[in-house]
Amino acid sequence: MYDTVVRNGTVVTPERAFEGDVGVRDGAIAAVGAPRSLSGETVVDATGLTVFPGFVDSHVHVNLSLGEFTTNDSFADATAAAARGGTTTIVPFAIPDEGESPLAAFERRREEADGSAYVDYGLHGCATRADDRTLAELPDLIDRGAASVKVFTVYRDRLMLTHGEIRDVLEAVAAGGGLCLVHAEDEAIIAHLIERLRRRGETDYSVHAATRPAVSETTAMWAVADLVEETGCPTLLVHVSAGRAGTVLESARDRRLPLLAETCPHYLALTEELYDRSDGEKYVCSPPLRDGTSRDALWSMLEDGLVQTVNSDHCGYDAAQKRRHRDDVTRVPNGLPGVETRSAVLYSEGVATGRLSPTAFVRLTSTNVARMLGLYPRKGTVAVGADADLVLFDPDAEWTVDGSALRQASDYSPFDGREVRGRPVTTLVRGRPVVEGGDLVGAPDHGTFLPTSGADAPDLFSGWHRP
Amino acid sequence: MYDTVVRNGTVVTPERAFEGDVGVRDGAIAAVGAPRSLSGETVVDATGLTVFPGFVDSHVHVNLSLGEFTTNDSFADATAAAARGGTTTIVPFAIPDEGESPLAAFERRREEADGSAYVDYGLHGCATRADDRTLAELPDLIDRGAASVKVFTVYRDRLMLTHGEIRDVLEAVAAGGGLCLVHAEDEAIIAHLIERLRRRGETDYSVHAATRPAVSETTAMWAVADLVEETGCPTLLVHVSAGRAGTVLESARDRRLPLLAETCPHYLALTEELYDRSDGEKYVCSPPLRDGTSRDALWSMLEDGLVQTVNSDHCGYDAAQKRRHRDDVTRVPNGLPGVETRSAVLYSEGVATGRLSPTAFVRLTSTNVARMLGLYPRKGTVAVGADADLVLFDPDAEWTVDGSALRQASDYSPFDGREVRGRPVTTLVRGRPVVEGGDLVGAPDHGTFLPTSGADAPDLFSGWHRP
Amino acid sequence: MYDTVVRNGTVVTPERAFEGDVGVRDGAIAAVGAPRSLSGETVVDATGLTVFPGFVDSHVHVNLSLGEFTTNDSFADATAAAARGGTTTIVPFAIPDEGESPLAAFERRREEADGSAYVDYGLHGCATRADDRTLAELPDLIDRGAASVKVFTVYRDRLMLTHGEIRDVLEAVAAGGGLCLVHAEDEAIIAHLIERLRRRGETDYSVHAATRPAVSETTAMWAVADLVEETGCPTLLVHVSAGRAGTVLESARDRRLPLLAETCPHYLALTEELYDRSDGEKYVCSPPLRDGTSRDALWSMLEDGLVQTVNSDHCGYDAAQKRRHRDDVTRVPNGLPGVETRSAVLYSEGVATGRLSPTAFVRLTSTNVARMLGLYPRKGTVAVGADADLVLFDPDAEWTVDGSALRQASDYSPFDGREVRGRPVTTLVRGRPVVEGGDLVGAPDHGTFLPTSGADAPDLFSGWHRP
Amino acid sequence: MYDTVVRNGTVVTPERAFEGDVGVRDGAIAAVGAPRSLSGETVVDATGLTVFPGFVDSHVHVNLSLGEFTTNDSFADATAAAARGGTTTIVPFAIPDEGESPLAAFERRREEADGSAYVDYGLHGCATRADDRTLAELPDLIDRGAASVKVFTVYRDRLMLTHGEIRDVLEAVAAGGGLCLVHAEDEAIIAHLIERLRRRGETDYSVHAATRPAVSETTAMWAVADLVEETGCPTLLVHVSAGRAGTVLESARDRRLPLLAETCPHYLALTEELYDRSDGEKYVCSPPLRDGTSRDALWSMLEDGLVQTVNSDHCGYDAAQKRRHRDDVTRVPNGLPGVETRSAVLYSEGVATGRLSPTAFVRLTSTNVARMLGLYPRKGTVAVGADADLVLFDPDAEWTVDGSALRQASDYSPFDGREVRGRPVTTLVRGRPVVEGGDLVGAPDHGTFLPTSGADAPDLFSGWHRP
Repeated sequence: MYDTVVRNGTVVTPERAFEGDVGVRDGAIAAVGAPRSLSGETVVDATGLTVFPGFVDSHVHVNLSLGEFTTNDSFADATAAAARGGTTTIVPFAIPDEGESPLAAFERRREEADGSAYVDYGLHGCATRADDRTLAELPDLIDRGAASVKVFTVYRDRLMLTHGEIRDVLEAVAAGGGLCLVHAEDEAIIAHLIERLRRRGETDYSVHAATRPAVSETTAMWAVADLVEETGCPTLLVHVSAGRAGTVLESARDRRLPLLAETCPHYLALTEELYDRSDGEKYVCSPPLRDGTSRDALWSMLEDGLVQTVNSDHCGYDAAQKRRHRDDVTRVPNGLPGVETRSAVLYSEGVATGRLSPTAFVRLTSTNVARMLGLYPRKGTVAVGADADLVLFDPDAEWTVDGSALRQASDYSPFDGREVRGRPVTTLVRGRPVVEGGDLVGAPDHGTFLPTSGADAPDLFSGWHRP
Repeated sequence: MYDTVVRNGTVVTPERAFEGDVGVRDGAIAAVGAPRSLSGETVVDATGLTVFPGFVDSHVHVNLSLGEFTTNDSFADATAAAARGGTTTIVPFAIPDEGESPLAAFERRREEADGSAYVDYGLHGCATRADDRTLAELPDLIDRGAASVKVFTVYRDRLMLTHGEIRDVLEAVAAGGGLCLVHAEDEAIIAHLIERLRRRGETDYSVHAATRPAVSETTAMWAVADLVEETGCPTLLVHVSAGRAGTVLESARDRRLPLLAETCPHYLALTEELYDRSDGEKYVCSPPLRDGTSRDALWSMLEDGLVQTVNSDHCGYDAAQKRRHRDDVTRVPNGLPGVETRSAVLYSEGVATGRLSPTAFVRLTSTNVARMLGLYPRKGTVAVGADADLVLFDPDAEWTVDGSALRQASDYSPFDGREVRGRPVTTLVRGRPVVEGGDLVGAPDHGTFLPTSGADAPDLFSGWHRP
Repeated sequence: MYDTVVRNGTVVTPERAFEGDVGVRDGAIAAVGAPRSLSGETVVDATGLTVFPGFVDSHVHVNLSLGEFTTNDSFADATAAAARGGTTTIVPFAIPDEGESPLAAFERRREEADGSAYVDYGLHGCATRADDRTLAELPDLIDRGAASVKVFTVYRDRLMLTHGEIRDVLEAVAAGGGLCLVHAEDEAIIAHLIERLRRRGETDYSVHAATRPAVSETTAMWAVADLVEETGCPTLLVHVSAGRAGTVLESARDRRLPLLAETCPHYLALTEELYDRSDGEKYVCSPPLRDGTSRDALWSMLEDGLVQTVNSDHCGYDAAQKRRHRDDVTRVPNGLPGVETRSAVLYSEGVATGRLSPTAFVRLTSTNVARMLGLYPRKGTVAVGADADLVLFDPDAEWTVDGSALRQASDYSPFDGREVRGRPVTTLVRGRPVVEGGDLVGAPDHGTFLPTSGADAPDLFSGWHRP
Repeated sequence: MYDTVVRNGTVVTPERAFEGDVGVRDGAIAAVGAPRSLSGETVVDATGLTVFPGFVDSHVHVNLSLGEFTTNDSFADATAAAARGGTTTIVPFAIPDEGESPLAAFERRREEADGSAYVDYGLHGCATRADDRTLAELPDLIDRGAASVKVFTVYRDRLMLTHGEIRDVLEAVAAGGGLCLVHAEDEAIIAHLIERLRRRGETDYSVHAATRPAVSETTAMWAVADLVEETGCPTLLVHVSAGRAGTVLESARDRRLPLLAETCPHYLALTEELYDRSDGEKYVCSPPLRDGTSRDALWSMLEDGLVQTVNSDHCGYDAAQKRRHRDDVTRVPNGLPGVETRSAVLYSEGVATGRLSPTAFVRLTSTNVARMLGLYPRKGTVAVGADADLVLFDPDAEWTVDGSALRQASDYSPFDGREVRGRPVTTLVRGRPVVEGGDLVGAPDHGTFLPTSGADAPDLFSGWHRP
């Protein structure tokens, strides 16, 4: 007799799909059994539904305060929205405030999150300086559970590190056994184009894609790949958007570099024509949406294994915030809400269309990133001993995205109006329902902190082994 | 309450290892549960043991009659020996007798096997001619469950097909949705060298390796790869032994050909110096044992995924048979017994030395070949719904191979005297113990026929998809 | 004062083109000078003409007797025809008669040629057996000036060697410092297809291409490339015709093998549709003409440097010989006349269309093969010290090929009726005019024997250096 | 009767070596003839000497004024030194002064050079800004004969352009049909390391190599290669020094980018241990000298064709200038004198040791760079119609470098004390002796300006064709 049994669903693991029951005891998966074979005090009927491992979203901005704007999500908001999207683990960033150290930022964010999350969470560390103090703190940061450290090649004077500084961080993170995350865009190309357009008086949101061409992304990626080769630091390139990035990633694979890549649903489903709309500022994110060729190339990179994970890069601004400086694209807050829609959009565009198998979908939304962060097999699969993070997903549900009806703090979605097939229905986190039938039923203090670690995953890392 | 529970072992699947119980009902795995969580009418204690999915050996010769000699194993013998080695599925060959058609051979072998096997079995079809009748039969052969069709590039006048004939078979098998197995050695190079040595009076077993140099293997492999490229027929190169084969396999991967490769424990653990021994004839097999460089290269190919499966190429001659014509290597019967020792030798040389992870060991001995033959996930993993083929394996057992003490029909083992670490203890086939504590306890009619099919496994096949 | 000055032409070397004079003394180029700067006893006005180094054709069959048929050219005929085509050096084959040794064949052919040639000539050795006597003779053969040794993978019972035999020859030739030439087609594939068509009653010339598909060429090429890799013998694959050969040649280049390739004008200009004509037997050659895709791929291989030389594979049968057994393609004599038209057809299809630069044309028709055979810089360029082999070529001449009007012994050309742009006008061999204004004016005993040697040409050989 | 005949030397062209005479008329090569066959009013006996085409040095700084220091060479000095080194063409840079436009700098430099040069000269344009005016001038600059435009990724606030600016320049140069030269080092990595060492009080010359590690070079190269791929602008990476650059160059070749590379004698012959010497500041140049592994890798890149030209990067500081700020490496003037020793050092280390053939030496010192700059075949070879720029070189001369005895303006050489084999003896520029027997005999106004152009050289450019 299990505490809970998810009965008679189509269970999808990273490797296969089967009909069966999942038995939960003390928050963990205690058994996986044949259909209708397990009994529990509570039985959740999954007949006709797909049972996925809870999704992991390692790219979520919570309560992000940069300059004039702050995103609207609290940890409670973001985790509630995540849960409605079937995501049972989010990994936000501990970005230091001005003058704050990475470790202090980490501790501040822990306090902010602890007791305020519907789902489990980790935290990425963040190095926005590479001074001696920062570098000295990194081993401790990694040890305390922020084994993944984010750096930016852009946003001068606030987040950006130079190549010299990034090299130091990569060395420190490699030595500490962690993983680097890199936002790779070439600051100088972008600044140069913005300045040129400014001189021409072209400053509004509609020039956004033109200020950040594909080459501004790849130029930075090539340089980062070289630093990865030199330092041997396993690294995830976040939010890859450009088709020409495929050349960088192929080269990295051929050179057996420990270089991984992430993309996001908006790069897979939206294109830059949206910047021509009268409300185009709502789609401003960096890197920007790109053309159809890039979008199609990203799908190929998913198939070829050049891109291993799809996360949301959730940024919870609302439409009014986006609108305020629409005439000056450099002041439009960057980023799109997406933690709540990630799984459905990817399922609809990927699995429902036949481009992705259900098992590939699990790997892209859950397993691979859990492995990168050392959370697997606790997270990322449906298996005995794993946390009972389970999503009951209706593969046939047809619905239309309406940002105003979502739980997220933003009042719009970049996918507003889009017809989608597939929807998470019920979400369990460590065996407890957090969402049932689409309704939030969990407790805002159910989520717990998950320390990350630098995992060894040679099959992800082109055969590279952590020393 | 399950029929049987394998309790508290370290379960190893193709993907991961965990502590747990396996519950069996009606011959299938009905549940996988936390340690000591499942209860059954029969409980098999696996404390301290590893629980692997039953091994699959797709290269086993049973009652093989070629020319003067016949191997000693009946189906009962071979399957009993297999079971003692933890192998729960063997796939022997239905080699036509002179004048017999492939389909007739298949039916004859079915009759021979049915009711006479301790473990489950499939059958490879075999094309030793490529006349119209043979080609016409292949679709039927595949449909009846011999989806894998073996051809030989050697053994002229008995088994060998020419490239023109092989091309026809590949086309027919591709069209029928099957898989080809190819024994690739260049007949002409070998015949030429044998003839030259014969002229010099060097004919005994000690010249065996010299008559079949590495290039005689790779020359044939390159040609087969080209035919695979042209016909699109998924193909397994069996018993790859030469280090230089790595170049062929890398080229095939780069060209995205559906070309797979197998090697055998003797190529991974033995070298050609054995032909210098006074009883060197016992090691005569084709391809021959090679030098240490080739052996080490094969291990690298396993790691790099260029070789995907390790089977025994079991040939149950006894020492007297091998000895009879030791002065004329061309008359020494070819082949080594090995179905019973395969898992232990590979575990000892691979897992115990740290070269292979336990999960990689499972893929090489069980999962990958099950996938190639369409037997997965029924065979090849420990998962709900799969057949309850389970091996309890003692990873710490240290023992010395002694062919005379094995259940196989041969009276020697090529590994005689070798100290080995790790040993199968108990073997269940579809839930029923066939071996317990090393003793054969199963029934000789427990095994059932498994039809194979041409599976789609793009991750094995360099990204190639079956059309 | 030079003996002869070729004045005021556009001189094209393998590297560049320039306006100038060429001064000849004692049969050699004694000076290259500015236009109208050199004076000579004889002055040949080249105003408006291109001055090429004499072309070298290393694939010419002279008086070839195989089975029922003998080609019609004597050495005098073939060299006269060559001279009219601007070819100042031909390299026929010394194919042993039944029972004859390679060295004896070489000496026989020397006698046949000496004193009977309008232009210079070398001789390829030929190994049609690989018995001890043959292998023992190869070093001597190479030393006497037949450093290039031809082997065939086809024409069983007459010319064919098996892979085992070819391996021996490659080893011997490598040790002797020579070069192997290989006719690579898979005998077994061809025999199998012929036999099948014969059973269907399809035997006439129109099935020729179907009996020798592209894969029958590449299968053999892959195997040869492997033997080249093993033996380290520099090797030229002759008359490459199939587009899929590009994959083999690219692989060889990536592996840095000393493997070179030749193609012929008919593969670059004609396609297999000709076999559908009522006189299609006239186009029977092996390998056969192929489809347009292969033809276009060959042009790309020339551009990419995968194929380094274009020779004629001249075989001087006449139309009646070709016609005699048109109902049985296996008895139609194989080969096409072409030594006289090679340069014009390649110029017209290559240079006049812009696909080849004039310097590339020189490399393909003259320099590269001269380098392979160790004849460079005596042959293959216009340079001081080189033999004064010069062709005055009218790049603007427009004419229509008419085999009956050619000097060759055959009564037809496969290019009959083709409109061609560019034509050799005057040919000097070691300073003496052999053709003037299209008319043969040379002496049939002017040609001398050129011993070949195994040259080192790492830029041709993918960076490979002769040990 | 020629004006001058260089008689009976071993003439080496980019393609071959031969014994012969070179006849000069009106400053051009009017004939190349057999040994002792040409007669002239003046005869220069080259018996026992090698006759090379005059060397071309496309990386020479003349009268370079950056910050506190100015190099000591006037155009007369630099060209005199060049002539003594057998260099008959130099291509210095027209680096704009502060506020000056590229075109103005070009005109200023023309004035400075015209009438003041012993040998011929071109001028590289230089873009140190990428404002509208600069970009608008580039087509004109290219048209006036500075088709090669240099940019720097380092030397912030003086020479450096950002990636955004470089992209603009590449686009403009590609559109104008020119060629870009890039000094590729990552400014940020270097600045970061200098700052760190400064904090530690390590500032003297001995840390020079540590402040500019190999990765600071390659990171910049990867980014530039990406910009080259995007813009399609043919580009020469100057003074490549790091072994790891080979990976970048191989990738560029595989991607068929029009990316060329140069290295310098000091990177091929000297290593960073020199910075440990008490006069180590004399070796400060950027990129710095590197370790033996890099040095050896550069030799391999020369052999593999990944690096196509070897120029001096001559910078004529004297020892006192180098010494002045030896305690602050950032203030030590960067660069080494070398225009006078380039050919002898490369000959000695390359040809005399057997690493380079004489023809390869000609390509690396003369032909290839002449081709890149559109100066070929006027410069870069010994051929009729070419300028009579000829070097008589004694291949057996053994001497010891002594900077104080050189004609250059600097008072030392980085090769001081090195024993060298091979030495230029006599240099002719357009037929006139400028150096005879090592003595300067030319006129300081003999040199003329050579406009460069963007040549098409697909064999240099990985098969890339100028559109």
